[in-house]
Amino acid sequence: MTSPITVPVVLGERSYEISIGPGLLAEAGTRIAALAPQARLAIVTDTNVAGLHLATLAESLDRAGLAHQTVTVEPGEASKSFTTFARVCEDLIATRVERGDLVVAFGGGVIGDLAGFAAAVIRRGMRFVQIPTSLLAQVDSSVGGKTGINSRHGKNLVGAFHQPSLVLADTSVLDTLSKREFRAGYAEVAKYGLINDAAFFGWLERRWRDVMAGGAAREEAIAISCRSKAGIVARDETETGERALLNLGHTFGHALEAVTGYDSRRLVHGEGVAIGMVLAHEFSARLGLCSQETPSRVAAHLAEVGLPTRIGQIPGGAGSADALMTAITQDKKVKRGRLTFILTRGIGESFIADDVDPAAVRHFLAEKLADGPDAAAPVTGP
Amino acid sequence: MTSPITVPVVLGERSYEISIGPGLLAEAGTRIAALAPQARLAIVTDTNVAGLHLATLAESLDRAGLAHQTVTVEPGEASKSFTTFARVCEDLIATRVERGDLVVAFGGGVIGDLAGFAAAVIRRGMRFVQIPTSLLAQVDSSVGGKTGINSRHGKNLVGAFHQPSLVLADTSVLDTLSKREFRAGYAEVAKYGLINDAAFFGWLERRWRDVMAGGAAREEAIAISCRSKAGIVARDETETGERALLNLGHTFGHALEAVTGYDSRRLVHGEGVAIGMVLAHEFSARLGLCSQETPSRVAAHLAEVGLPTRIGQIPGGAGSADALMTAITQDKKVKRGRLTFILTRGIGESFIADDVDPAAVRHFLAEKLADGPDAAAPVTGP
Repeated sequence: MTSPITVPVVLGERSYEISIGPGLLAEAGTRIAALAPQARLAIVTDTNVAGLHLATLAESLDRAGLAHQTVTVEPGEASKSFTTFARVCEDLIATRVERGDLVVAFGGGVIGDLAGFAAAVIRRGMRFVQIPTSLLAQVDSSVGGKTGINSRHGKNLVGAFHQPSLVLADTSVLDTLSKREFRAGYAEVAKYGLINDAAFFGWLERRWRDVMAGGAAREEAIAISCRSKAGIVARDETETGERALLNLGHTFGHALEAVTGYDSRRLVHGEGVAIGMVLAHEFSARLGLCSQETPSRVAAHLAEVGLPTRIGQIPGGAGSADALMTAITQDKKVKRGRLTFILTRGIGESFIADDVDPAAVRHFLAEKLADGPDAAAPVTGP
Repeated sequence: MTSPITVPVVLGERSYEISIGPGLLAEAGTRIAALAPQARLAIVTDTNVAGLHLATLAESLDRAGLAHQTVTVEPGEASKSFTTFARVCEDLIATRVERGDLVVAFGGGVIGDLAGFAAAVIRRGMRFVQIPTSLLAQVDSSVGGKTGINSRHGKNLVGAFHQPSLVLADTSVLDTLSKREFRAGYAEVAKYGLINDAAFFGWLERRWRDVMAGGAAREEAIAISCRSKAGIVARDETETGERALLNLGHTFGHALEAVTGYDSRRLVHGEGVAIGMVLAHEFSARLGLCSQETPSRVAAHLAEVGLPTRIGQIPGGAGSADALMTAITQDKKVKRGRLTFILTRGIGESFIADDVDPAAVRHFLAEKLADGPDAAAPVTGP
């Protein structure tokens, strides 16, 4: 077996390990059998991932003598719907997995959230294993136990905290991602620098090409990201405090996703987060919390990597300030009419501001929208 | 305020109280405001309960200055579907309740399970209050935090453990139940005697008419039932052991409900449990675990109360042994092909048998079905 990097997530009896490294998919059988030798597996995946990687996973499970069946959904955010959720639950129950068996979430963030939520509620809770196949899922959604689906009123408004029993992040699988998908995940990597690790952000500014290229720098960036998230989650599993920092860029980002109809041709989650993080830094500067140079430095790095950083880059625009405010106030981070945003005092100095004036946000967004669409907006470049 | 009987459910930081007594509905506002003075309330109820009791609840909440909105569903088991669940979640989110607000489950077992599950997953967990309006809900489904909906493959296969913050069981509301509904709840009351309290079963044999009539005996029966369940749940919240005892009669009962298509004109849950408990005692006697007199005594009492006790009493029959076995093996209580049943060594001496031979169950059921339909089957009497 290979020697992956191991990141422990310490949550009492719900503790588990994230393994990170190339070639883990081919070892999934051995590693899962070590966890649950008798378990039967129900794999949830999407048609893209199934076409690229299911054979490798299935062979590995077969070699380890683990029985498995597969439930497949369409790729894309639209699968985080009540309809697909119901279908996946019914199909998983039809495989006759029992309470001690395992659901395997095999795919990107959508699959992790969807399959994790199904595992959380089938028979009132089954164990599950995450095998994230996108950079986004490896550094974010497969760590920390947030699972869920989207409401017509906003993203992830329906779900559960349900920790996986094991996470296998095979970094070589990431070679099959498009550049756009990889960059979208990179936005979440950069987020860990921006939250509380200025040194990591500086490292990324210098080494991002190596992270893109693969190899040791990529693995290191993923491990640092997972370690950062694991630490935050261990201190605040159900987001009563510090964990909200992980939402940096996400309140703006989710609103942008909502007003663009979750249409991945226009905007994917990581791109929304990239623009959202720039907005969060700009808004912080506007409030006098950090220098004007801070948002400029964030935007410069994300733009260099190839991520969108301005609302004007979204094909078809992002609606009105009203539409964005409706989405923002319906997001989870609202308390008695005041908004909760993650703001910052500088690179790596983010904090939770739970008393943000909605009028100030609306004014800020209206100004951003007035900038109008960019002449050339290569959001969906190669 | 009245002085209701109070039953504590001791579950660490998830502990709560069940209040039992007449007139509690009119005090709901004061009691909920004491728990969460600033909360906004989203009430989930069905059209029957709304017609009978919503005005009383709403007035009480208004007097206490609590803002509230209502989401209404059709009465009946069919509302425990993915479709209704999705609609209730969307409607609750549309009321803009926030994480500190309260979902109020106002109705019978179906409403408690459905609204409780929605509360468990909206924003990954909202607080909720149970105001059970059926005897069944007061003694069973509103205590212990099991919430959920039905799969096409079986009952309650999708759900969550989510404890309420408060349970208000207004015993005077039960006066509006039909005799059939009251009797159905009574089956669950009798269950607590049969599980581990022979003295309570004896008391019921003597006092059941007083329980039916209302007043102190009814309140006492409900309190004893809640105390019994609270004790079991406190010792085993997520059913890794002892809690399974609460399934006495339920594996057979659920299978009967499944094969009769959850059609309440033919069979309601409590009636399925009544027949199921008799079957569990008969099967135990068949296995030589208890005397032949035990199932006879159980059946005699339930029949005296007016509950069905034989499969043959179900209008339209209960299909084949094959259909029943399919439903039983898809129920939650299966481990590696062996069945888990609650069996008994006598009145009040039930135990968990987790290695029951499916062939023995099938043979037993085939025999029961061969008895054929009863000539007169007044299941749906007055």
